[in-house]
Amino acid sequence: MQNNNSALDAADTAQRHKETNLRRLLNPASIAVVGASADPSKAGSQALRSLNGFPGRVVAVHPRESVIQGRHCYPTFADILEPVDLAILAIPAQHCIQAARDAAASGVGGIFIISGGFGESGAAGARLQEELADICRASGMRLLGPNTSGFINPQKQCVASFVPGVDQLPKGRIAVIAQSGGVNLSIAFQIQRLREGISLAVGLGNAVDVEAADVLSMLASDPNTTAIALHLEGVPQGRKLFEVLSTVTRLKPVVALVAGRSDIGEFAVSHTGNLMGSYQRTASALTQAGAVVVDSTEELAQAASILAHRRLPPKARNGFALVTGQAGPGLLIIDGLKTAGLDVPELASATIEKVQSLLPPMTFVKNPVDTGRPGPGFTQVLSAVAADDRIDAVFVYALHEPAVLDPSAAISPAVNREKKPVIFGTLGTQEDLQPVLEQLVRAGIPAVLGPERLVLAGKVLDADSRGQWRLKKSSFTSPIAGDTATLANTLNEDQAKAFIASYGIRTPQRKFCIGKNEAIEAFKALTKPVVVKIAADDVPHKTEVGGVFLGIQDLQSLSSALAAIERIPTKTPGQFLVEEMAPLGVELIVGAVNDSSWGPCVVIGLGGVLAEAVSDSSVRLAPISELDAADMLEGLRGKKLLDGFRNLPVCDRSAIADVAVKIGQILIDHPEIAEIEINPLRVNAEGAVALDALVVLKNQQETTS
Amino acid sequence: MQNNNSALDAADTAQRHKETNLRRLLNPASIAVVGASADPSKAGSQALRSLNGFPGRVVAVHPRESVIQGRHCYPTFADILEPVDLAILAIPAQHCIQAARDAAASGVGGIFIISGGFGESGAAGARLQEELADICRASGMRLLGPNTSGFINPQKQCVASFVPGVDQLPKGRIAVIAQSGGVNLSIAFQIQRLREGISLAVGLGNAVDVEAADVLSMLASDPNTTAIALHLEGVPQGRKLFEVLSTVTRLKPVVALVAGRSDIGEFAVSHTGNLMGSYQRTASALTQAGAVVVDSTEELAQAASILAHRRLPPKARNGFALVTGQAGPGLLIIDGLKTAGLDVPELASATIEKVQSLLPPMTFVKNPVDTGRPGPGFTQVLSAVAADDRIDAVFVYALHEPAVLDPSAAISPAVNREKKPVIFGTLGTQEDLQPVLEQLVRAGIPAVLGPERLVLAGKVLDADSRGQWRLKKSSFTSPIAGDTATLANTLNEDQAKAFIASYGIRTPQRKFCIGKNEAIEAFKALTKPVVVKIAADDVPHKTEVGGVFLGIQDLQSLSSALAAIERIPTKTPGQFLVEEMAPLGVELIVGAVNDSSWGPCVVIGLGGVLAEAVSDSSVRLAPISELDAADMLEGLRGKKLLDGFRNLPVCDRSAIADVAVKIGQILIDHPEIAEIEINPLRVNAEGAVALDALVVLKNQQETTS
Repeated sequence: MQNNNSALDAADTAQRHKETNLRRLLNPASIAVVGASADPSKAGSQALRSLNGFPGRVVAVHPRESVIQGRHCYPTFADILEPVDLAILAIPAQHCIQAARDAAASGVGGIFIISGGFGESGAAGARLQEELADICRASGMRLLGPNTSGFINPQKQCVASFVPGVDQLPKGRIAVIAQSGGVNLSIAFQIQRLREGISLAVGLGNAVDVEAADVLSMLASDPNTTAIALHLEGVPQGRKLFEVLSTVTRLKPVVALVAGRSDIGEFAVSHTGNLMGSYQRTASALTQAGAVVVDSTEELAQAASILAHRRLPPKARNGFALVTGQAGPGLLIIDGLKTAGLDVPELASATIEKVQSLLPPMTFVKNPVDTGRPGPGFTQVLSAVAADDRIDAVFVYALHEPAVLDPSAAISPAVNREKKPVIFGTLGTQEDLQPVLEQLVRAGIPAVLGPERLVLAGKVLDADSRGQWRLKKSSFTSPIAGDTATLANTLNEDQAKAFIASYGIRTPQRKFCIGKNEAIEAFKALTKPVVVKIAADDVPHKTEVGGVFLGIQDLQSLSSALAAIERIPTKTPGQFLVEEMAPLGVELIVGAVNDSSWGPCVVIGLGGVLAEAVSDSSVRLAPISELDAADMLEGLRGKKLLDGFRNLPVCDRSAIADVAVKIGQILIDHPEIAEIEINPLRVNAEGAVALDALVVLKNQQETTS
Repeated sequence: MQNNNSALDAADTAQRHKETNLRRLLNPASIAVVGASADPSKAGSQALRSLNGFPGRVVAVHPRESVIQGRHCYPTFADILEPVDLAILAIPAQHCIQAARDAAASGVGGIFIISGGFGESGAAGARLQEELADICRASGMRLLGPNTSGFINPQKQCVASFVPGVDQLPKGRIAVIAQSGGVNLSIAFQIQRLREGISLAVGLGNAVDVEAADVLSMLASDPNTTAIALHLEGVPQGRKLFEVLSTVTRLKPVVALVAGRSDIGEFAVSHTGNLMGSYQRTASALTQAGAVVVDSTEELAQAASILAHRRLPPKARNGFALVTGQAGPGLLIIDGLKTAGLDVPELASATIEKVQSLLPPMTFVKNPVDTGRPGPGFTQVLSAVAADDRIDAVFVYALHEPAVLDPSAAISPAVNREKKPVIFGTLGTQEDLQPVLEQLVRAGIPAVLGPERLVLAGKVLDADSRGQWRLKKSSFTSPIAGDTATLANTLNEDQAKAFIASYGIRTPQRKFCIGKNEAIEAFKALTKPVVVKIAADDVPHKTEVGGVFLGIQDLQSLSSALAAIERIPTKTPGQFLVEEMAPLGVELIVGAVNDSSWGPCVVIGLGGVLAEAVSDSSVRLAPISELDAADMLEGLRGKKLLDGFRNLPVCDRSAIADVAVKIGQILIDHPEIAEIEINPLRVNAEGAVALDALVVLKNQQETTS
């Protein structure tokens, strides 16, 4: 017991040591550069030059030189007497191992390796990379990279990068964590163009030691950071990222961009050595953890800059209003918001009356409010709209017309009184707009250029608010009771159904029969009509071999069905499943899979070949709550089919949700299961019944694949 | 005959007169402003001020003043002795009619009306608008608006607008035609921000007289315009626009943005009085006419600026290559291109060898070429890639690093030798990049900011090239022979099938039977199994009333089917259709509808409720070619189902295309048809059979709705 405690204490201390070293790496007081050079085209030369503005101590490590770029050189780490927080290694891969060992031995907090030639380049590089990981594990020293352009910490005036211009990135409240150094800088430069600043911008590269979850964790308590922009290229330890992200998004907004919608695996491996994994699983997991997933670096920068200003509180659905001086752009904005599925509620009648009293007759005022060319009443109109209880955030669009509208003067009263986000969209010539935008920054009013950026603002504010709401509301009931004994052997259909039934999932009345006589007895005992299926251990796809006979009403049909099944070749002949027919309904597929990175994932899809062909399914990490499951159903493109479409019955959505929750629980209780699938789950207004069930164990998967 | 000719001549002369007057309106030598004012917040005051840079003659029309803003005032149009090309009316709606009459009487080329209060504001305004249209029709004078912020013609230094700053829009090669004045300016300002210029930017407003097709037509021969950005909010005369656009896109690229994805009808009507129509039909028709349809004003501006530089020649599929200095952004670019379905072919082996010889080992060079931090070989790498026959356009991405890469020096050799488009994507601080971007403009190399803009460039270049290719390749065979006699009466299923069969569409062997005896005779004569259906004139939805019996093999089943059908209430009892069962296959819906704006449109969709629920269908204007039909099938999200998915047969795509072509021809031959639908069309490797057909005549539609 005591031993155990001290082991735990040791692990805890090691973890705290690693966290401290990560802070030293990314907020250094002293830096050493290895591989500094006088040749300006060399990364090492630029890396040293980039530190010119750094107020802390900078030294170089060089075997022969004594001074480079005016910095004192030491022959080895051991010769540096003062502690070094960060060592930048601008040397070829093969020399990095010894340098890392030396740094660790000298108590360096963390190193950052610029060069490639590691895991992304083949087996020899992967071995070098493994050696680096070993050094970090043993010493607690942290490693950023290898194979990255580094990081910028404008708060500490620390530019640990070899790319010029990054020292001009302004200090601000957005943190960037990118898999790729190049993407890190691409995002940071775009944030600058949006008149926002950076609190920290990190390119992880091969992420041998420091990975996204570590930096996220650190930033959760960083007072300088109010929003985080995250870029991922494949996530080796998904479950860890999910857990960290779920905590961080409760505290501050995270926007995420994930590469890998299409098949880019070969090039991706050549880049960081990461496998891309499933885009759908990654994007779904990040959303489930409360992040806002976007489609481009442009959207990432814009979304982070909107959320860095202010996020909406947790809410299931937010109401958005638009006040616009030009109807045409207004139409594009409303069209975009509605196409994205956002609420643009009609204003309350009191608001409409108030607004009507302020504007000329015949103006459209229900929402949007189309003021026409802004007049003196614009400020009051805006305040009235912002005061409406149905409205959580207000967008304003007006072209630059200083003679009729001063945006910050017009918007500030509404913001100050109603405490709701008001975001201004505009356009004009670059020269004309510059002072207006600067004034808006000073007034604390976020501004975007062009109508569609307001649509993006709506999507992002709403997604972040809904994400927080889901995290708050998702409650997990006490573990569902079920058969938790470890499964060792393949389950046939009857056994698989009994297994899921133990978790409370409905299955049809049925009888597993050996020999025709048992089948005839079963037929007599069950409610007609029945379905008769082959029950062979070696025939997983029963329909495709003609082993399923539906609607058996009489003994004659039963007997021909049994005869037909007996003709199908199998190692276990003469086994039948006789089962009552389920009532008609809509068919879904509910399953779960144990992903190597994300762990147990629940999948809900509509049944049928078209749903399969268009990949109409929703994924969440298990455990899922009823709320998550309901959200998954909302995510199906063909969700109309659940609500009485054409001649189909209205489906009991909570029954589907209940099955999905239980399927998730099964995978958590049974790590030996690789995959489980109910296909089809037959659903109508009375509930959901599993018509077939398949359980694949990990050991099975390994032997068959 | 002579009368006819002279009537034609007169119409021709009137048309030429109108075209001349449109040119006078948009390229004026002299301008009169009505409603000029000294109050700077008034549109009329700003409108006059905006003309300060106009080199031609500017006068004001005012009943009392003699000079406003230093311009000479005339009391009426009649008092102005010199010809006036353009009159700007900055006066309230109710005064516009008289002013328009006076202008027309004085031979003004065209007028532009700023104010609203016309068709968008209700019945009274609609009457005023109709009066304006009458004046234009009678006189040939043109009218821009009403209800718009006007136009800018930088070529003529003519700023006919009341929005400040627009006089600073630089002269250039992109024309903007927007439904809305506010969108017109929003697009124009975004083009300026992309370092491009404007040849003409027009906001159409209510488009009572001058509409998009007129301006497109004029711009087709405008030497200053190399690309056109088009914004639409609902198209009242779609077929006319389609015809004009199909001609213009052969000469220069057109990029289009259409409002109305979601239901924004009420607000839209309040804006311009236009009904929005079907977004799908509008977007499909524009694409079919060779335009590139995009999703936002940002994309519109960026796409136009890329195409204004250079378009790719007509081609079915283009190959794109990427040379990147940073792998991470490269991954995002390749991911985006592939997700958009574009070709990123592996480079030819000779190219790969050449590139490998120029770069360090272990670099990814198949496509993309990941050079790593650019080195001296970058220019040669790029030239080698551009020389590859598989590649039609090359993208380059590199962060701003002047020490290692001079973009215009690196790119120019490849551009000059290979004559293929090379587009550069980059990022850096605003200040650092400015000179580089200016240098690239001078070198004639288009540059974009950020990885995803290169993806957009790929989509746009490819869509424009494919659009040209389709217009070139779409050949229409001589009219298909069929029953062209005008249909006067409702067709029952048998008649509808006979009608489509006259156009060569396959239908099952069948017999329309009156009374049970005829049905029994038909059963005996046809190949078994058969299907028996109710054939009542007043029962269009046969399945839903239980009026369809499949798989009838014997007389006993036949007789119970007939008995069941006889129990269904109808005005025409005792009528049956007995039909041979078609072989199994995939079911589609092929139909055509006569749209009030676009005319005959062909629709292809997959069968089944899910396809309906997710609206998985393709639309084209008839007539369509086999190529168009093949393209429609490619546009179905569930297209996998046609190619042997799961247990489904491989479908004969050309048989589906043939049916679609013929259905289109039917609607052209029969203007009396409102709608025709084959549902389902059963398809397998042997061909396509129409299992049901429905013809709705216009007179029927009117009486039933």
